[in-house]
Amino acid sequence: MRRSVQQLRKGRGAVRIGELSAASGVPLPTIKYYLREGLVPAGSPTARNQADYGPEHLARLRLVRALIEVGGLSVAAARDVLRAVDDPDLHAHELLGVAHDATVAKPVGRRDTAEWRLARDAVDRLVGERHWLVHADAPALDQAADALAAFATLGATDFAPLVDVWAEAAEKVARQEVAAVAARESRAATVEGAVIGTVIGEVLFNALRRLAQEHASAAHYGFSPEQRPC
Amino acid sequence: MRRSVQQLRKGRGAVRIGELSAASGVPLPTIKYYLREGLVPAGSPTARNQADYGPEHLARLRLVRALIEVGGLSVAAARDVLRAVDDPDLHAHELLGVAHDATVAKPVGRRDTAEWRLARDAVDRLVGERHWLVHADAPALDQAADALAAFATLGATDFAPLVDVWAEAAEKVARQEVAAVAARESRAATVEGAVIGTVIGEVLFNALRRLAQEHASAAHYGFSPEQRPC
Repeated sequence: MRRSVQQLRKGRGAVRIGELSAASGVPLPTIKYYLREGLVPAGSPTARNQADYGPEHLARLRLVRALIEVGGLSVAAARDVLRAVDDPDLHAHELLGVAHDATVAKPVGRRDTAEWRLARDAVDRLVGERHWLVHADAPALDQAADALAAFATLGATDFAPLVDVWAEAAEKVARQEVAAVAARESRAATVEGAVIGTVIGEVLFNALRRLAQEHASAAHYGFSPEQRPC
Repeated sequence: MRRSVQQLRKGRGAVRIGELSAASGVPLPTIKYYLREGLVPAGSPTARNQADYGPEHLARLRLVRALIEVGGLSVAAARDVLRAVDDPDLHAHELLGVAHDATVAKPVGRRDTAEWRLARDAVDRLVGERHWLVHADAPALDQAADALAAFATLGATDFAPLVDVWAEAAEKVARQEVAAVAARESRAATVEGAVIGTVIGEVLFNALRRLAQEHASAAHYGFSPEQRPC
């Protein structure tokens, strides 16, 4: 590997776009596309059609790839998040909202039924009982109602006691997630942490929940991974 | 509403396809599509081009809609899950695996890097330390590695202590989820509960986690929902 690429990875120096590609593992045409779309800031011009790129470009490229590849964001959604990251007037708390909004799954099911309205009221009661400070148009309120309405439609009333189990667990992990992100040394690092933690933390938690479900099911039914049930 | 539709909703009687549509709220062309695709079993023929549908068709329609609209499954994925639900040789524990496999998000990021391999090893260690009974090719193992590799790529090493927080919370909720589903009165109800709980429970938990994050962030930064930070 070229010395300049190694330097860049250590947070020093400046390189041409080809070396930025080598250092990041992101193909050259993709980097050019991100530059055109404004996801990665332009380099410092050194000559006609040439520019230098520094460690800040490498860090930004990694964040873009994480948002798009791991978080599943569209280019437009990633651009919204990055604009917020770069906006000095935006408080870290507000940026969490931007990260949430960018990664909201599309509405699931109908929201114009009496059943959905009842579910939405139940979500408001839950939030009130837990004294959660949440703004009234948080998309997650509607998403929680989507799920509760689906339980009701499916007659899965036996899942009602689980709602408190989930809320309790969510509260516990969220407190430690926010503490970890807020402990970062700079505003930029905190906002990056909020985006990464929200998007990738969700992927990780969902995967761990599924593994834990398989384990709990195996333990419950006396099933070992390589064997049929007893 | 017609008397026959009310009867059907109470689990009695038989109706024509138009009344099945009225009882379920699913448009007639959609029901015909589900019938053609084998997601809903055929009715009992009563005359040329006519058939009767009973409460079991209404229940199946609701499950199909929940899988597709709430769970985000494709028609093909929903069909796989429903086949498993209908397979008497499949143990409830195995059906959980089918529900998991059908709802696996597409792989995120590259899985051919040294970093990913390290992350995958870390997942295996975590599973081993927690004595989780998980089959070796569970897709969630790779998904957890995707997320860990992304943290590593992004230099988010400060998230490492959160992995245990997430695993602990996942273990706790999974135990109660499996207990609730296994307590259902019949095999069919248990497998339906596993599918619903896996797919819709994920939507609900993710929404609650985001609400809890907003609350934890507001509390941490002294931010009230309708106000700028102090």
